[in-house]
Amino acid sequence: MIESVSLHLVRGLPVINKGDSLADLIQSRFELLDGDLICIASTVVSKSEGRVRELSSYTPCERALAIAKNLGKDPRFVQAVLEESSEILLDRPFLLVVTRFGHVCVNAGIDQSNVPPGKILLLPENPSLSAEMIRRELNRDCPVIITDTCGRPFRFGVTGVAIGWSGLSPIRDWREATDIHGRKLEITLEAVADEIAGMANLLMGEAGDSTPAVVVRGLPRFDGGGSMFMPEEQDVIRAILSSK
Amino acid sequence: MIESVSLHLVRGLPVINKGDSLADLIQSRFELLDGDLICIASTVVSKSEGRVRELSSYTPCERALAIAKNLGKDPRFVQAVLEESSEILLDRPFLLVVTRFGHVCVNAGIDQSNVPPGKILLLPENPSLSAEMIRRELNRDCPVIITDTCGRPFRFGVTGVAIGWSGLSPIRDWREATDIHGRKLEITLEAVADEIAGMANLLMGEAGDSTPAVVVRGLPRFDGGGSMFMPEEQDVIRAILSSK
Repeated sequence: MIESVSLHLVRGLPVINKGDSLADLIQSRFELLDGDLICIASTVVSKSEGRVRELSSYTPCERALAIAKNLGKDPRFVQAVLEESSEILLDRPFLLVVTRFGHVCVNAGIDQSNVPPGKILLLPENPSLSAEMIRRELNRDCPVIITDTCGRPFRFGVTGVAIGWSGLSPIRDWREATDIHGRKLEITLEAVADEIAGMANLLMGEAGDSTPAVVVRGLPRFDGGGSMFMPEEQDVIRAILSSK
Repeated sequence: MIESVSLHLVRGLPVINKGDSLADLIQSRFELLDGDLICIASTVVSKSEGRVRELSSYTPCERALAIAKNLGKDPRFVQAVLEESSEILLDRPFLLVVTRFGHVCVNAGIDQSNVPPGKILLLPENPSLSAEMIRRELNRDCPVIITDTCGRPFRFGVTGVAIGWSGLSPIRDWREATDIHGRKLEITLEAVADEIAGMANLLMGEAGDSTPAVVVRGLPRFDGGGSMFMPEEQDVIRAILSSK
């Protein structure tokens, strides 16, 4: 049973460049303990992996030109989104896609903030693999979550979510648990990685003085595997969008 | 700037009955400080407000009978959902509705766990008013969030979300902020109340030994009003569901 949990900003991280070891930069600035969970913003993971691109390097296809015209966006930006996506769920009034690694988000998560003009920042190619690579470089045994900031249907505003994870199950399974009357629960699978990523995102902030790494201390181990991305055949809303 | 934040379970709360003062039960068990934020599960708020109903008290209408047959559910349960809803977004393969207070969720959040057989637990009628009533009974100046657990499109599992709030703005506005290159941010409205509710939900747990109140210490004040529920005219996915 969890008693209390604390979240701590990792202070003093430099601007991240390709090839930087996020693991070393974090563990040299924060005294990690075994079992601490580290949340890292996808922006710095992308930068360390060299996922910055020149907008001018993209040549828009017909479809990108058509979508860009509709949205009033740069066709090269739309082309970049298409190249990072395995499926387009909506092409207006915004570009809602499934990324190649299975994450449903607007613009394939491509960021034009916090990179110089004329450049864009792609999400990591495989964020769970990124999380694993970082975790293996740590001197302590710490699960790692890669976070991104996303909107969602029905609710206002954006929240932090987990787009990659290593060393923890992103889902907590309550299927064997019972309520105070001894009956099986109706709610069975809890997206703990998203719950953690959201709170970490709140601490990170969005602005220029943001801090892209947060350490969470006091959580139990979440074991058992699983994914944050809903299997396509179970996603009723996605099926409705796809059939439009 | 936030440095660190801690979350603490409020231990030893009894089973809640109609008329209980949640404020008193919490502040007698936890030494609150001004500025602590209190997250309370909607289940205990509902119980304190007497929102338990007998299933047998509902007489299903034609529509409830039809939906119930399709879903294989008790028609009286479906009737209860319809009575708590202002709009039905989907009636299969599950009942996705807008509650009378504006929250989009399955089954109008009506719970059959943690209440005796034959009974159901409705959500609070106006969770933000509930939050305000609780907050006014506190001896300290503490914002209050009422949480519920919900699924969401595209992502697997459920998370805690804020369905009521008092004493804080549920949205943090980054519209005046700039990135490290001095440009305005693309991401502007952050749903901080949901990010906090999610993490609190992780500490609360879902099972019979769950703890329905969590104190969050170390957050800045979030001011400025706003709502967690997306205005209908801005909700693209809802419009698609409504037009089906």
